[in-house]
Amino acid sequence: MRNKIKDLLNAEHPESDITVHGWVRSKRDSKNFTFLELNDGSCLKNLQAIADEDIGTYDVLKDINTGASVEIKGDLIESPGKGQKWELKAKAVALVGGADQETYPLQKKRHSDEFLRQIAHLRPRTNKYGAIFRIRSEASFAVHQFFRERGFHYVHTPIITGSDCEGAGQMFRVTTLEDTKKPVAEDFFGKAAYLTVSGQLDAESYACALGSVYTFGPTFRAENSNTPRHAAEFWMIEPEMAFADIHDNMTLAEEFVKYLIWFLMENCKEDLELFFNFVDKELEAKLTNMLTNDFERVEYREAVKILENSGEKFEYPVGFGVDLQTEHERYLTEKHFKKPVFVYNYPKSIKPFYMRQNDDGETVAAMDLLVPSVGELIGGSQREERLDVLDSAIEKMGLSMEEYGWYAELRKYGTVPHAGFGLGFERLLMFVTGVTNIRDVIPFARTPKNLEF
Amino acid sequence: MRNKIKDLLNAEHPESDITVHGWVRSKRDSKNFTFLELNDGSCLKNLQAIADEDIGTYDVLKDINTGASVEIKGDLIESPGKGQKWELKAKAVALVGGADQETYPLQKKRHSDEFLRQIAHLRPRTNKYGAIFRIRSEASFAVHQFFRERGFHYVHTPIITGSDCEGAGQMFRVTTLEDTKKPVAEDFFGKAAYLTVSGQLDAESYACALGSVYTFGPTFRAENSNTPRHAAEFWMIEPEMAFADIHDNMTLAEEFVKYLIWFLMENCKEDLELFFNFVDKELEAKLTNMLTNDFERVEYREAVKILENSGEKFEYPVGFGVDLQTEHERYLTEKHFKKPVFVYNYPKSIKPFYMRQNDDGETVAAMDLLVPSVGELIGGSQREERLDVLDSAIEKMGLSMEEYGWYAELRKYGTVPHAGFGLGFERLLMFVTGVTNIRDVIPFARTPKNLEF
Repeated sequence: MRNKIKDLLNAEHPESDITVHGWVRSKRDSKNFTFLELNDGSCLKNLQAIADEDIGTYDVLKDINTGASVEIKGDLIESPGKGQKWELKAKAVALVGGADQETYPLQKKRHSDEFLRQIAHLRPRTNKYGAIFRIRSEASFAVHQFFRERGFHYVHTPIITGSDCEGAGQMFRVTTLEDTKKPVAEDFFGKAAYLTVSGQLDAESYACALGSVYTFGPTFRAENSNTPRHAAEFWMIEPEMAFADIHDNMTLAEEFVKYLIWFLMENCKEDLELFFNFVDKELEAKLTNMLTNDFERVEYREAVKILENSGEKFEYPVGFGVDLQTEHERYLTEKHFKKPVFVYNYPKSIKPFYMRQNDDGETVAAMDLLVPSVGELIGGSQREERLDVLDSAIEKMGLSMEEYGWYAELRKYGTVPHAGFGLGFERLLMFVTGVTNIRDVIPFARTPKNLEF
Repeated sequence: MRNKIKDLLNAEHPESDITVHGWVRSKRDSKNFTFLELNDGSCLKNLQAIADEDIGTYDVLKDINTGASVEIKGDLIESPGKGQKWELKAKAVALVGGADQETYPLQKKRHSDEFLRQIAHLRPRTNKYGAIFRIRSEASFAVHQFFRERGFHYVHTPIITGSDCEGAGQMFRVTTLEDTKKPVAEDFFGKAAYLTVSGQLDAESYACALGSVYTFGPTFRAENSNTPRHAAEFWMIEPEMAFADIHDNMTLAEEFVKYLIWFLMENCKEDLELFFNFVDKELEAKLTNMLTNDFERVEYREAVKILENSGEKFEYPVGFGVDLQTEHERYLTEKHFKKPVFVYNYPKSIKPFYMRQNDDGETVAAMDLLVPSVGELIGGSQREERLDVLDSAIEKMGLSMEEYGWYAELRKYGTVPHAGFGLGFERLLMFVTGVTNIRDVIPFARTPKNLEF
């Protein structure tokens, strides 16, 4: 198969008679020769190819422009020029597919993110988006590697669901009915079906069998909110551990986030540097700060006191029983603690039924991880494992015992303390790259009124 | 965190004062002591724990039954008994969560697959389903490892789509409308939205930028077919390579399938043995046969001749222009070649518009991988990279140029020969385990009229 430019740029010694395929990023004509900058997507850097006018196929170069695909045969030699160790001395150049200079939208100049979103099928051909999506790929691998090394099993929880994970968000309906006014009994599944907002409940059933599990899959929100932080479809990672409490949960979350950042700094150095240099000058320090500090752990009660005594003017007033807003979260992590912080033991009135009730009667064993710039990166909890407490929480919420009967049964037979959390994958990518619009870390983003490609 | 039974069973030397958590698979009372078989999901094997009647917590054992969760403190010692190297000599036993003997459905006896499907939230607590889902997890990791080692980038193609990948199957509609008779312009995305049947077209756009990519995610079919081989929701793997033709494609597919089987035989030995011993006596030989043979490659034309000359009585007659049925596929791989076989260059009349037309004017560069027992395991093709040929194929199919305009643009700018395929993940798992119903390799299967959990 083909030689990849990434491997050639890391070559140990010169190589004769190789074949390289790629897309031309730029062409520069000199008197007796032509330079081509070639990229094949394997890495950020280009391979420089030089064609002397005396090669037989020199004529073809006049038809080769930015965006064209080419095949070049030649020798990999040490580059006499600055800026690269190796270059390709061409013996034969072939045009594979041309790119018209008048219409090809990715000429060598800066393009706005807004413009590139409209050509999402072409934007991974740019440096920035190539880098983002190589990082996304490596981050995905890091997720699997982290959990596997710790003996977690990957579970594919269903995407189509009949349950709503207790109103974690508005849901899309899934149907085969021509007319949704017809009885749901006539629909494909014989009842109303939705796109999942979380795999947690299903993951719990697997944690209560395989011990430690995680999900990593798409989740959905039908919220009609056009913000830089919301997408209708995004990927989420949800680990779930049996025989674990809220403190084990925080320990796992801290190790996980640190591992992901470490892995990317180790494996995506070149791509990350693009963001360090051109997107956010503070980014590298922010990532390093994550790795070198122990994350703070503070109870919600204490966090509220810190906010009340901060002397800050918040848009939303704060007090026990109030859900923390992004402004509060960012104050705690950016100004007060100056590092990532877990806030835990939230008032039960603002949290879902499945979270474990604490002995104080007022709070549940919930936790959020707050990080600079982003605010909440992770949300999780210890789950209620006591059947009677869970049953009365389900009843109090007016949820259907029939629908949650199987979930309650996990507590009826061999119940165990267990805990887990959710990490929004795109939010992590935004944190790691400094990219501020979620549409720019998703290959083809789905947002209200936007379903292209 | 907790000691996992998998690690304890692989211990190098005895260990004192350890704590083990798990679920009781069986209890056996002797005169002065009690045996417990403990499983924590980390592996198939149980850890045997022995509690002497003189330990302080011996009384609690009377409340411990099959299915209960327990915490046991004690010493890991060499087992004097047969069948295990290590056992746990208990110093203290605690009941975490009981399981009522009258109602707990997983008593120590054989249960039918049909019965276990109805308690899909509990079935991973059995040997067979624990093994299936650990294998599923490891197979997922192997997918990522295989592609990453070869420089492929993982791309999350969208689940919600406006396009239908040219009728690969019936689709589910996704909507937020109360009444689907309303104009689609009022729907969430401003147009009709569906669940994807394939990420291929989107993956192509990334292959034409990052070079080699793959998807691994859920796909959907709204077909109302209640068979052991069909599910409405299943996971698919779709690699796509730039600068590659149909032969490179077959080479990749062969390497991929062999890698997956090799990886599982290497990493899931114990779990696989359950299937070798109790599910399919031929299975081990079948998997080994895959690893040791070069896969056959035969053109469709030739395959049809073989079938015509076979002397077999097929239910469906065969001849050029006919799509091969499972009976034909199985004859070729099981009886004629006795090993996996690629059939390629199919008549263009039975294949989708995006496949590359061959010079004979009659066939396209499509390929299917046929394997024993299962039939088609992989389907793929070289894609049409010539803009004019693609355009006229789109037109001939009556597809909308507006909708596929972005897809055609991949050919307009720097087009390259490229190829890819799709592997149904569940079909692979069925092949590897010998399990014959797709519902049994999916944690919570979605089929017509079935949307539980």
